[in-house]
Amino acid sequence: MGKRIIFNGFTQCCMNHHSEGLWKHPQDGSSRGYTSTDYWVDLARLLERGCFDGLFLADVHGTYNIYRGSRDAAVAHAVQFPSNDPTVIIPLMAHATRHLGFACTYSTTYFAPYHCAKLFSTLDHLSGGRAAWNIVTSYLADANANFGIEEVLSHDDRYERAEEYMEVCYKLWEHSWEEDAVVRDPVRDMYADPAKVHEIHHDGTWFKVNGPHMCEPSPQRTPLLFQAGQSGRGTLFAAKHAEAIFSIHPTIAASAASTRRIHEAAAGFGRAPESIKICQGISVVVAPSDEEAQMKYETALRYASPEGALALFSGWTGVDLALVDGNRQVHEFESNAITSLLGFFKQVDPARAWTMNDIKHYMALGSIQPKIIGSPQTVADELERWADEGLVDGFNLVPIVQPGGFRDFVELVVPELQRRGRMRTRYEGTTLRENYFGAGHARLPAEHTAHTALPPWKHAARRA
Amino acid sequence: MGKRIIFNGFTQCCMNHHSEGLWKHPQDGSSRGYTSTDYWVDLARLLERGCFDGLFLADVHGTYNIYRGSRDAAVAHAVQFPSNDPTVIIPLMAHATRHLGFACTYSTTYFAPYHCAKLFSTLDHLSGGRAAWNIVTSYLADANANFGIEEVLSHDDRYERAEEYMEVCYKLWEHSWEEDAVVRDPVRDMYADPAKVHEIHHDGTWFKVNGPHMCEPSPQRTPLLFQAGQSGRGTLFAAKHAEAIFSIHPTIAASAASTRRIHEAAAGFGRAPESIKICQGISVVVAPSDEEAQMKYETALRYASPEGALALFSGWTGVDLALVDGNRQVHEFESNAITSLLGFFKQVDPARAWTMNDIKHYMALGSIQPKIIGSPQTVADELERWADEGLVDGFNLVPIVQPGGFRDFVELVVPELQRRGRMRTRYEGTTLRENYFGAGHARLPAEHTAHTALPPWKHAARRA
Repeated sequence: MGKRIIFNGFTQCCMNHHSEGLWKHPQDGSSRGYTSTDYWVDLARLLERGCFDGLFLADVHGTYNIYRGSRDAAVAHAVQFPSNDPTVIIPLMAHATRHLGFACTYSTTYFAPYHCAKLFSTLDHLSGGRAAWNIVTSYLADANANFGIEEVLSHDDRYERAEEYMEVCYKLWEHSWEEDAVVRDPVRDMYADPAKVHEIHHDGTWFKVNGPHMCEPSPQRTPLLFQAGQSGRGTLFAAKHAEAIFSIHPTIAASAASTRRIHEAAAGFGRAPESIKICQGISVVVAPSDEEAQMKYETALRYASPEGALALFSGWTGVDLALVDGNRQVHEFESNAITSLLGFFKQVDPARAWTMNDIKHYMALGSIQPKIIGSPQTVADELERWADEGLVDGFNLVPIVQPGGFRDFVELVVPELQRRGRMRTRYEGTTLRENYFGAGHARLPAEHTAHTALPPWKHAARRA
Repeated sequence: MGKRIIFNGFTQCCMNHHSEGLWKHPQDGSSRGYTSTDYWVDLARLLERGCFDGLFLADVHGTYNIYRGSRDAAVAHAVQFPSNDPTVIIPLMAHATRHLGFACTYSTTYFAPYHCAKLFSTLDHLSGGRAAWNIVTSYLADANANFGIEEVLSHDDRYERAEEYMEVCYKLWEHSWEEDAVVRDPVRDMYADPAKVHEIHHDGTWFKVNGPHMCEPSPQRTPLLFQAGQSGRGTLFAAKHAEAIFSIHPTIAASAASTRRIHEAAAGFGRAPESIKICQGISVVVAPSDEEAQMKYETALRYASPEGALALFSGWTGVDLALVDGNRQVHEFESNAITSLLGFFKQVDPARAWTMNDIKHYMALGSIQPKIIGSPQTVADELERWADEGLVDGFNLVPIVQPGGFRDFVELVVPELQRRGRMRTRYEGTTLRENYFGAGHARLPAEHTAHTALPPWKHAARRA
């Protein structure tokens, strides 16, 4: 029996964020539901019924306006637009569940680290230790224009700044309040001992933050740290900071190679391979039989808006794919960006002479996530292959129809995976970090970079 | 029978934010509860059972560190510290209720207007139109140090900047998406019509924001607008923007005079007096009889931490009250700040030779909020006097023990006020603005400043 596999639902506070046009599907609930509390409560309960580890929430702060040089396709096809703020639905869902964790995307570019720390401490308190932060540095020029940012940092500078951002957050979460700072002592009339609550006095290149942290220590202190960068610099950042990595690789082989690179990079920071969980984005269509699943996929395809998928992909890559003729083969294009972009699909099937029309079809449902379409057995087999050969620890599952696709997975695939010993049948601990790393691991491990520069009181405590 | 009176619960995501030390009180639930979802859900349900209009949430981003030149008193007595983020508990409470509104303090200094607009649209969607924004410009030097703000704007510049901040928000909330922009048209494969979703192209002194707004129109579009500034510039800002004002006057006479000033200022912006609701901060201790209420107050006083109250007041005013000898009378102090500050108490009782010890005693429970202590009849009589003679439209009610004080009020005072026709017995509409202004008033009125500068599509629609 192989290792247990982690499962997160993957969504966003908008409709069908990786399957454009599916708001028209008769079974879609997200387009009416994303603005209502009932929708999110039901989704959280469903995932907990399925023993999922967490729900992963994406976020975006602008429109995808590269395709045809306009945001019109993104607006017409509701391409992650409109999109609401995801942070505020977490306590709501936490109240309706007991174990499910909640990972939220939050940008180091648009929010101050002091507030980031306060927000995630609040979420961690209210959820009883089930908050995760998906650290992103943000890249969309259109989003920058909404925040008045005119000078865009280079990719590497964004990460340098993010490094310092993390340092500030660690100081606030881990070092500002000592473990026994909250004394609740009526005799001394003291709620917290001022001598055990510390300013952080951070004075760096990008940030100046005095502290102390506004929040008393939450169950996890630092939320579970997620990261999604796949660039060279992104991998280095993840290897240092991330406890979980959200990656989207086109094939099992590409995934295995990436996992090896990450483990190697992590070792450079003194971290064991098992201290970082790799979660692959995956799109599953499941039905009782392979044939029914294929029919379900074909039916959904009729509701897709492939132009929306191209708007999304053009936004991600900065390349206007409207300029690429549908029937020409991808190797005919010269631009570096397009080549590297289309290289992704070449990996999916090297034998195929990929045209833009092929790509449009591939991306129409589930965007660049690999798709698994089949019976519970077929799906479970393929997920096991990703885990065992692709060396992933788990998945960010993005169904095509939401929330129906999550329900199908919980009802059909989860029992199969449980039979195979690949999914839990009951939760082990109470915090999200324990969902990932086992009971008793509610806090960041001692070897994590957040702990390497110990503040004086921690040194003293160690000596004692 | 007099006019109906508005009631908001007034609290913060911390323990007893205006009665320091009460975390020690045996009936206090806030010090254990403020980090849990159950606490907030129960509080919201309680207030809705009492037909309250809303729950008003304060917020703060630093410690009060003026008293004795240190934040030690604030930390020891938990003076609004620790304090969690209030925005994220609103959808949670909205899900547990159907009518209660939620006003949240949000600073124009620490957050970008683009995000502010997205956040409050999200809250308004998820609550079905029950979100309010308490607009603050922030003043604490210690909070600025947490956000790396070294050059503090003058009081008036803060308001100038806030004016532009409001302009950006109005453009996003009211002008970016036309009323019929969301078409959900499967035939044209169109969720929203790109021609009816507009960039705002804001390019001002303080902000540059391109748009369009990330969110489709929510039930209220613009959240109900609350404001709490009592300075000259603050009053002008409120007279132009606010639909509700949170004020704390020491006496009924001072309140009446202030209301007249606000109405006069509002007229200058073409606004009718009834378009701005004045809510007075008030602290109520109620029991079946006057004697029992007085006993309840005296008992609570034993748990108070008057030093915490001084830390709070020193933080607000920037004057270290530890330098002021307890027994000297207030008129002996020369500093302008102290004089104007102590003038507040002179108003409470002009005949009294106020000493710092008197002030400390006065503030120990409920801080500067006037206190009403008595039977349901006594409390109702006094509240009616504030409404009729003090010309307030309602109250921000801050109990001394939380949530017990809210429960007492709902069980003892609300029925009395309902008998007198001063409180509703059932809700009139579905949105928070309708709680304030009656059924059918879900949106900002046409004469509000948000509408005076109409964008082209609105002009066209008017002509049609």
